[in-house]
Amino acid sequence: MRGKLIVFEGVEGSGKTTQLQRCSQWLEAIGLAERFGEGEKIPPVVVTREPGGTPLGLELRQLLLDAGTNPTRQSIEDRAELLMYAADRAQHVEELLNPQLKLGAIILCDRYTDSTVAYQGYGRGLDLTLIEQLNQIATGGLASDLTLWLDIDAEIGLKRARLRGSADRMEQADLAFHQRVQQGFAQLAASYPQRIVRIDASRSEDEVHSAIQQILRQRLREWVMGNG
Amino acid sequence: MRGKLIVFEGVEGSGKTTQLQRCSQWLEAIGLAERFGEGEKIPPVVVTREPGGTPLGLELRQLLLDAGTNPTRQSIEDRAELLMYAADRAQHVEELLNPQLKLGAIILCDRYTDSTVAYQGYGRGLDLTLIEQLNQIATGGLASDLTLWLDIDAEIGLKRARLRGSADRMEQADLAFHQRVQQGFAQLAASYPQRIVRIDASRSEDEVHSAIQQILRQRLREWVMGNG
Repeated sequence: MRGKLIVFEGVEGSGKTTQLQRCSQWLEAIGLAERFGEGEKIPPVVVTREPGGTPLGLELRQLLLDAGTNPTRQSIEDRAELLMYAADRAQHVEELLNPQLKLGAIILCDRYTDSTVAYQGYGRGLDLTLIEQLNQIATGGLASDLTLWLDIDAEIGLKRARLRGSADRMEQADLAFHQRVQQGFAQLAASYPQRIVRIDASRSEDEVHSAIQQILRQRLREWVMGNG
Repeated sequence: MRGKLIVFEGVEGSGKTTQLQRCSQWLEAIGLAERFGEGEKIPPVVVTREPGGTPLGLELRQLLLDAGTNPTRQSIEDRAELLMYAADRAQHVEELLNPQLKLGAIILCDRYTDSTVAYQGYGRGLDLTLIEQLNQIATGGLASDLTLWLDIDAEIGLKRARLRGSADRMEQADLAFHQRVQQGFAQLAASYPQRIVRIDASRSEDEVHSAIQQILRQRLREWVMGNG
């Protein structure tokens, strides 16, 4: 079976990074042998993220997100930012995602194209057609097989994120920005109901994890039945 | 008068960086007061380059060109490279070129959009329409007022460049690559005869400098007469 790209999306503090890690441990531990049948080759689980899923991407991520340490990093122009995210994505798709999908991996990716639409499009107000164009250029057409949108109120999410400690450049943006980002995710989920599944992320960590398990069990079954 | 963007283009070892510096000194020393008339406010001369014309751009330039010191930097995917050049350009246009042109500056820029067409399009074989799209996104439509193409045989240029010492990632590419780049510049010069002026760069440094002076004297006169 060709691999699957499963993306975790959401505003700051939605818990997606924590949930992605738990999901990975669960899939590694019990999920895949059971889903794919005894004796079958168990597909590898790959955890990655954007920006920063490759060595080059890590350096771009530092330029994009590190705040405070270097004042020049505060002054990234909107279009330059958009193009740097696209560069990170192009490298990620070619160097990691496509080769791993060919190997049959189940990839869990922290943010992908929808984040660019939500943050740079809805958040910063950049032209949505331009963003679609750049997503197309960067991905070469690779879409996620399933996107889990961890839906949480932007204000609650930001408070959670700030409790974690020092805020990066995105987390320092104001609440109105994050509310626009949240609207962006809601709009995307409405536009792509098959690809994007909304998960109520205001619940406890265990409850959210169970919800994700349930969705993934069903999708994995469908994928195996559909043989890809 | 609105400022002017004058771009120096050419393959490695064409002498453009040296000529740009000499041109800048000449304009500063004698050119502008004379051209623009006594008593007029003398426009500033600004020297810049791509990639690396801004603090962010300098960091992108290091990722793009530094070879050898970090093995991961050898493996930049073609589309990622293209998008990083575009990000550098978007930042450059917004942070430096547009504001300086508003102030009336004469900007001398080492490489601009034509290099992307020549290197990534003709050299690497990336889709020319895609490159045009990205140049448009990155520049917001800002074209050069005059591009000086320092035309030299790719093999002679590469030999010159390698005499300078350690080669960057571009200079390490093979001769066939640089010959395709050279063809790209020739094609661009044929397509945009008004904007791009070819200069025979196989001559001595002084002869090339004189040729550039002659062209610039004429253009500056036209610009002042045309009042913009």
